[in-house]
Amino acid sequence: MNPQQLETLLAEVAAGRLEVAAALEQLRHFPTELLSYAQLDHHRTLRQGHPEVVFCEGKSIEQVVTICERLAAASGGFLGTRATAEQARALAARFPDLEWDPVARTVHRAPVRGASRLGTVLVASAGTSDLPVAEEAAVTAAAMGCRVERLIDVGVAGLHRLLNARDLLTLAEVLIVVAGMEGALPSVVGGLVGVPVIAVPTSVGYGAAFNGLAALLAMLNSCAAGITVVNIDNGFGAAMAAVRILTGRKSA
Amino acid sequence: MNPQQLETLLAEVAAGRLEVAAALEQLRHFPTELLSYAQLDHHRTLRQGHPEVVFCEGKSIEQVVTICERLAAASGGFLGTRATAEQARALAARFPDLEWDPVARTVHRAPVRGASRLGTVLVASAGTSDLPVAEEAAVTAAAMGCRVERLIDVGVAGLHRLLNARDLLTLAEVLIVVAGMEGALPSVVGGLVGVPVIAVPTSVGYGAAFNGLAALLAMLNSCAAGITVVNIDNGFGAAMAAVRILTGRKSA
Amino acid sequence: MNPQQLETLLAEVAAGRLEVAAALEQLRHFPTELLSYAQLDHHRTLRQGHPEVVFCEGKSIEQVVTICERLAAASGGFLGTRATAEQARALAARFPDLEWDPVARTVHRAPVRGASRLGTVLVASAGTSDLPVAEEAAVTAAAMGCRVERLIDVGVAGLHRLLNARDLLTLAEVLIVVAGMEGALPSVVGGLVGVPVIAVPTSVGYGAAFNGLAALLAMLNSCAAGITVVNIDNGFGAAMAAVRILTGRKSA
Amino acid sequence: MNPQQLETLLAEVAAGRLEVAAALEQLRHFPTELLSYAQLDHHRTLRQGHPEVVFCEGKSIEQVVTICERLAAASGGFLGTRATAEQARALAARFPDLEWDPVARTVHRAPVRGASRLGTVLVASAGTSDLPVAEEAAVTAAAMGCRVERLIDVGVAGLHRLLNARDLLTLAEVLIVVAGMEGALPSVVGGLVGVPVIAVPTSVGYGAAFNGLAALLAMLNSCAAGITVVNIDNGFGAAMAAVRILTGRKSA
Amino acid sequence: MNPQQLETLLAEVAAGRLEVAAALEQLRHFPTELLSYAQLDHHRTLRQGHPEVVFCEGKSIEQVVTICERLAAASGGFLGTRATAEQARALAARFPDLEWDPVARTVHRAPVRGASRLGTVLVASAGTSDLPVAEEAAVTAAAMGCRVERLIDVGVAGLHRLLNARDLLTLAEVLIVVAGMEGALPSVVGGLVGVPVIAVPTSVGYGAAFNGLAALLAMLNSCAAGITVVNIDNGFGAAMAAVRILTGRKSA
Amino acid sequence: MNPQQLETLLAEVAAGRLEVAAALEQLRHFPTELLSYAQLDHHRTLRQGHPEVVFCEGKSIEQVVTICERLAAASGGFLGTRATAEQARALAARFPDLEWDPVARTVHRAPVRGASRLGTVLVASAGTSDLPVAEEAAVTAAAMGCRVERLIDVGVAGLHRLLNARDLLTLAEVLIVVAGMEGALPSVVGGLVGVPVIAVPTSVGYGAAFNGLAALLAMLNSCAAGITVVNIDNGFGAAMAAVRILTGRKSA
Amino acid sequence: MNPQQLETLLAEVAAGRLEVAAALEQLRHFPTELLSYAQLDHHRTLRQGHPEVVFCEGKSIEQVVTICERLAAASGGFLGTRATAEQARALAARFPDLEWDPVARTVHRAPVRGASRLGTVLVASAGTSDLPVAEEAAVTAAAMGCRVERLIDVGVAGLHRLLNARDLLTLAEVLIVVAGMEGALPSVVGGLVGVPVIAVPTSVGYGAAFNGLAALLAMLNSCAAGITVVNIDNGFGAAMAAVRILTGRKSA
Amino acid sequence: MNPQQLETLLAEVAAGRLEVAAALEQLRHFPTELLSYAQLDHHRTLRQGHPEVVFCEGKSIEQVVTICERLAAASGGFLGTRATAEQARALAARFPDLEWDPVARTVHRAPVRGASRLGTVLVASAGTSDLPVAEEAAVTAAAMGCRVERLIDVGVAGLHRLLNARDLLTLAEVLIVVAGMEGALPSVVGGLVGVPVIAVPTSVGYGAAFNGLAALLAMLNSCAAGITVVNIDNGFGAAMAAVRILTGRKSA
Repeated sequence: MNPQQLETLLAEVAAGRLEVAAALEQLRHFPTELLSYAQLDHHRTLRQGHPEVVFCEGKSIEQVVTICERLAAASGGFLGTRATAEQARALAARFPDLEWDPVARTVHRAPVRGASRLGTVLVASAGTSDLPVAEEAAVTAAAMGCRVERLIDVGVAGLHRLLNARDLLTLAEVLIVVAGMEGALPSVVGGLVGVPVIAVPTSVGYGAAFNGLAALLAMLNSCAAGITVVNIDNGFGAAMAAVRILTGRKSA
Repeated sequence: MNPQQLETLLAEVAAGRLEVAAALEQLRHFPTELLSYAQLDHHRTLRQGHPEVVFCEGKSIEQVVTICERLAAASGGFLGTRATAEQARALAARFPDLEWDPVARTVHRAPVRGASRLGTVLVASAGTSDLPVAEEAAVTAAAMGCRVERLIDVGVAGLHRLLNARDLLTLAEVLIVVAGMEGALPSVVGGLVGVPVIAVPTSVGYGAAFNGLAALLAMLNSCAAGITVVNIDNGFGAAMAAVRILTGRKSA
Repeated sequence: MNPQQLETLLAEVAAGRLEVAAALEQLRHFPTELLSYAQLDHHRTLRQGHPEVVFCEGKSIEQVVTICERLAAASGGFLGTRATAEQARALAARFPDLEWDPVARTVHRAPVRGASRLGTVLVASAGTSDLPVAEEAAVTAAAMGCRVERLIDVGVAGLHRLLNARDLLTLAEVLIVVAGMEGALPSVVGGLVGVPVIAVPTSVGYGAAFNGLAALLAMLNSCAAGITVVNIDNGFGAAMAAVRILTGRKSA
Repeated sequence: MNPQQLETLLAEVAAGRLEVAAALEQLRHFPTELLSYAQLDHHRTLRQGHPEVVFCEGKSIEQVVTICERLAAASGGFLGTRATAEQARALAARFPDLEWDPVARTVHRAPVRGASRLGTVLVASAGTSDLPVAEEAAVTAAAMGCRVERLIDVGVAGLHRLLNARDLLTLAEVLIVVAGMEGALPSVVGGLVGVPVIAVPTSVGYGAAFNGLAALLAMLNSCAAGITVVNIDNGFGAAMAAVRILTGRKSA
Repeated sequence: MNPQQLETLLAEVAAGRLEVAAALEQLRHFPTELLSYAQLDHHRTLRQGHPEVVFCEGKSIEQVVTICERLAAASGGFLGTRATAEQARALAARFPDLEWDPVARTVHRAPVRGASRLGTVLVASAGTSDLPVAEEAAVTAAAMGCRVERLIDVGVAGLHRLLNARDLLTLAEVLIVVAGMEGALPSVVGGLVGVPVIAVPTSVGYGAAFNGLAALLAMLNSCAAGITVVNIDNGFGAAMAAVRILTGRKSA
Repeated sequence: MNPQQLETLLAEVAAGRLEVAAALEQLRHFPTELLSYAQLDHHRTLRQGHPEVVFCEGKSIEQVVTICERLAAASGGFLGTRATAEQARALAARFPDLEWDPVARTVHRAPVRGASRLGTVLVASAGTSDLPVAEEAAVTAAAMGCRVERLIDVGVAGLHRLLNARDLLTLAEVLIVVAGMEGALPSVVGGLVGVPVIAVPTSVGYGAAFNGLAALLAMLNSCAAGITVVNIDNGFGAAMAAVRILTGRKSA
Repeated sequence: MNPQQLETLLAEVAAGRLEVAAALEQLRHFPTELLSYAQLDHHRTLRQGHPEVVFCEGKSIEQVVTICERLAAASGGFLGTRATAEQARALAARFPDLEWDPVARTVHRAPVRGASRLGTVLVASAGTSDLPVAEEAAVTAAAMGCRVERLIDVGVAGLHRLLNARDLLTLAEVLIVVAGMEGALPSVVGGLVGVPVIAVPTSVGYGAAFNGLAALLAMLNSCAAGITVVNIDNGFGAAMAAVRILTGRKSA
Repeated sequence: MNPQQLETLLAEVAAGRLEVAAALEQLRHFPTELLSYAQLDHHRTLRQGHPEVVFCEGKSIEQVVTICERLAAASGGFLGTRATAEQARALAARFPDLEWDPVARTVHRAPVRGASRLGTVLVASAGTSDLPVAEEAAVTAAAMGCRVERLIDVGVAGLHRLLNARDLLTLAEVLIVVAGMEGALPSVVGGLVGVPVIAVPTSVGYGAAFNGLAALLAMLNSCAAGITVVNIDNGFGAAMAAVRILTGRKSA
């Protein structure tokens, strides 16, 4: 039940065309339908702003293509993460304007809209093996309307490379900092800047890295105050957190 | 070496009063001193805005009082977290205008300044046992210049209380969501709002809660996209993350 | 807003005393208030059936007494779990008819009502050290209206004691099986009976028992199909699960 | 030795046709044979009600076919879980009336019997990736004689979908709630209904989901009282727990 | 029901003094009573050989004294492990001939019997902090009738001390090897002797010793074939395992 | 340096043909050579009794064949564990009398010797999936000279099958009890017999079985006193522990 | 900016050819450029001493070849670790003088330089399965200019082999000790020698070895004082630690 | 048996005063006595260089005093770690020249000897809470004869403080780097210097620091090559590792 339907119902009651008891019955399911408003509003906002997102991992080629076709029909575009080469090729056959990024493992079809309208996200990564996660974050943020800068291979064991990039660090409104192994980069970056720092641990490393656990724990225990953390390898989630921050900022 | 000193040195060289070799020697330590600029600038910003913060846990009463005296002398105020009653009493004897919050375990002396200048943070907590962590976040955010709202006892097993507070949820610019046990609250909240959600797991619970591990893992794996997480019981860190977000927003 | 209030509102609209727009505004918060119905209904059911429950651990004596006074005023009775001797003494001073069970660590004041109306729960425990958890389950189940039988010290290393009690096992409608250490008892019991078996791991044991982790994992991996598990030391939760089962059964 | 045989033996002794010493010798194995009664009784009950169950994972095609043939000969039907496509194809060649569900990974051949005779189980799942586990539960429960309803894709980040289905939730006698990632769904559902809720964590998720550990811990620590939990991905076990509950209820 | 009672019953039936139906009724609990034979036999063996054992940890002084009094009345003696000084003093007041070993934390009252009758157990320990566990093993083994030798402070970082004791190592029939920290001693000992080696990890150590986990894992992964392991700090269990081995050997 | 060489050296000194200083120099490496005696003695014992053992996992076919050829040349026979079908086929081509057990994953060539000379080991296993580990234990024990009995599919959820086999349980001198999932079988068996029980956890199970961790912890925390444990899936190690026990017993 | 450039800049200022303000601007990035000195110096040292190192795991054949070509062009040589056979073959086609060690999984092309100039490293390993890690350490240390000795198959269960090699142990200046399973070897070695011991846990073992965790914990808890540890399977890291030690020693 | 005794024995044989057989018998225990040489040599070195070390934690005051008296009698001095104030006071009463460091929790009595003879160790620590561990390392290294420098409060979130101290970093021959929380400091330091870096994780932090596990894992996974790690809070072990390095260097 949407607001118009609710207004109609009340008008019916006011006009004596609907009994109070009958109206009461119809309102039984009102709560969830009211909540559906928000959902619909949200969908509208999404359609106007950024594309829908599909997590492709574990889905069949057929499922991915079908879902993307439905999204494209509804809003013009879509973003797929964790896409395999096979999935990407099938989508490209269907959508000639598809952008496939094999490092980020993303497939993206932009809805028709103008240039970036949100602020700048800097995606910094510690090592070359962290790039898939960093790129997933970068592509997602860009698809959502952010301006994206990249800073790669700035692991803390070679501090000068990070310090050389201080201009870039101070320019960004939000930093996404991606690191595996000992996960120290967000702590160092967090001490250099005052803007929001979203730390992304990666499963890069071996042995006692325990598939990203070492980096995750390090980031949660950062001595730089105000760092926040997302799940291991969750570049997508970090980008969405940046979008939450920048969306609010834009309307400020 | 600060910029003025650097300028003087260069002027000395320009004037022929300082040999190039001697200038070179003096510049050997330039890098870290240049970095100290940022540190000093940062300090200046801090002094103008919010008080210095002292982590009181594990410090002697003497240490806490001495540090706070030094901070008060420098900037007028301070904030202490994880303060014991004994530490608070000793500080109150020294600073009659001290604000001590025994639930949040904070001691706060505000520097002379005007009203709140940053946006609104809503601190929502799942159960009454989560209050110390939630209050640490609330007091810290307020001390840093945020407007703070609170929403308590809105655990997901009693969903109507949370839904009753939807106005409050949509009013805030940043949400800090505090929960122990199964840590589900941030996921539900993150599905209801589009603003930044900072999740704080607490060590509340027993048995397989493993001192907050259950809530921490749940929050890192939230199905609501864009939720970020801080360390277990780290109300202070969540508030500082909110400050990073709102500071940027203010200058937007 | 309760149903009466909603009916009144609709009647006001029907009578032309309330504008549709004004009614619409008042209904903005309807969803959660509707949900509150369920909550109120639930409360009513609770009051008629079993007492409210207070988790006393970590609460001050003052808090516990105040909460219990409020509950007693509302419904006549209450149940407190994890109560200390100090909390129990303070409550007994206030409620002369309080039942305090120092092993179960429960305080109970029964509302005025008739005899047990739900089916029979058998609480079986492996060792004497498991008794506090078993008794918490037994007292809670009894307070909620179940008939409760007990079977103690039937660890699997002395199988004959368990087999001697087969009559008791087959008599119960729900079994709560409490064990620490290797946690094998629910698997053996689950093979002997066809009724619901709720397994409760306890933190009894040392070394590689890891505070109940060994028993918890054993119970989750039981080779007896259809065993379910609650948190370590969660006798209360097991009893509430039994109540969920028996309440439904009663109405069947 | 069954009761009739025991009676015969005693009669032989009474008639002087069997020496006391010889009777004593024959009774040496009495205990386990008595226990075999229960086993036989259980088998009889099973045959009349629901099919035997085979865990196909790790078994060869030959083994699976042989076992199923033996079960079919004995009772007419069987249920196989975790069946591969190869195993299913081999069984279908042998049993033309085999029902294979590739999502649930089940193979089922129903014994000749009437319609469902147990109550209604609702299987609710949080995300599409949780479907194999949810379907394993649904197919198993149906094979065991339950009426089964399904509710899919009701993750807590989109609360309105769950609230929209409240009628369905209140209709079921037992709820099986399946979720991976943060595992919050059973806590929310458990707060909405009073009937038994069996929570099934799944290994869906990545990084700090640790193959279902996050969801498992969340469910064990649910703030909704009386939720019980089964092993990760154990849809079969959840269904069997529901059967234990509903079997008892039926006979109430 | 013991064998004599069973024989009597059968004789009663044979003599016509007991109806078959009545005999059948009496035999209803036969199985578990048959199992009780073994239990009774076992008790008899225990009484003749070694004292009953009480785990004193977590029991009140009153409980410990009462249980020991009952055991002393039945069999003349008892062994208590994990006894506190308070428990020991209370027992000593009651049993003047009590042997209390404050390092092993044992209380022992020997039944009247002859000298040791089982073979030799060597209890070897790596460091002085491992002594309480080693002594618990040694006192238990001695109380059970073993001859006990001790070898202390033979950690693997000072190999010569261990090699100096090779005569002692080759003399024992069973070795109990107790070590904390890196838990390497059983591996080295297991390579030097061919007799059974029971490894006991202790919780000695700090940091990444994780309360004995490091030693436990090391012992489970020993490169010396045929080493077996008991729980962390379980000196009692190791002694009982030695008794199982030597009891069998004696009767060989 | 063997004893003969040492004797010769001393005789040389006694005869004045070797200087004290030169003898001293030659004795510098004496310790390890003396230790080599034990090694040689040990080897001799091994050769006379049971075959050498090769852990085939991770070795190339070439390596396995070469090692086995060397062992066969030295002692006539060998035992290989964790052998693949490829390794077994290559060995069978070389040794026509090779015994390959594809379930146990063992390859065995017996040295020329008489019948079994050690006591009886009973290998009991809980489920059919535990058979590879149980068979590895059984084949190894047999190859080492033990008489081996087997008891399969006696999981604790079907207690009557275990109790039916009590004769077999009481006949064995050592029990190897193999179980995955909840690992309860050794606790139940340990309560039924007084002989040594060696518990072998297997990696059978899924989800919270954590590859055998659940069974391992359960066995370490057994409430049956005197149970010892080996590594997960270590059937070989359990057999070698049995051999250590029975070898001693034989010579008693 | 290198020292020459800095000197030039200062000379420009001294000569009046560069304004102070302009010099100040140019010096803005001085810190990181100064840090680049160290980097450049370090590079120079590296080029003169040992080859650059490439971690080949997870890189494409193309990437590996390109990187190695660039390194070879810059310094004449390179070292690659964790190289696959495919990567090695591609490199060998490009560099005919490539040394490929399939056990160590290394590819090495030596720059033109003289013989080893650093001290002696002894790489000792416990079992044959530890060889890949041990060889990675050995090849890396040799490539970096160390003299390398090897000692294999000296696990602690066969102590005599280790003691036989005492000459070798006392000859080395640094010991790298590699072990999986129970990881006891470094503790034993550390008690025999006074030189630096670098312990390398390997992922060799199964079950409760937990992919090297058991060995890692054992080594961290070594009772031999002054042992240090690197990551699981990190032979490369151990060699680099040895190089750090020996480089300093050389210049002493 | 020491060398003199061995020489005497050989002389006796040479002189015909001792039979070869009798000599052979006496040499039976030679190996371990030969090993005792090394032990004695080591003792001699220790006595000449640095004091004996006592781990005081868990020892009674009496035990500590007795052990220290014995050590003082033998070598003039001793070092005690993890000493309580009570232990220190008792020792000070006995040894007026005792040096007690309450932060490092050490008690030290220097043997009569000259100034430091080993190289320079720099002990760097991240936060003030890490000081007890850092001081334990510093006092131990000094007691062993090293020159010790300290660098405190150089956590990575305030990078300028560390960079300001680069002179100090390059001056040391060995670095001990102590950090809790995220444990990032050793990685950053390891990138700045080429000398040996010994990383010490501390248990400083809360929540997901898991008592030092986060820092330990971070250090084991450092992206700076050649960092080695000791146990959590093991300042003593780090100092001993530095002594191993510097002792070798001295003799180079």
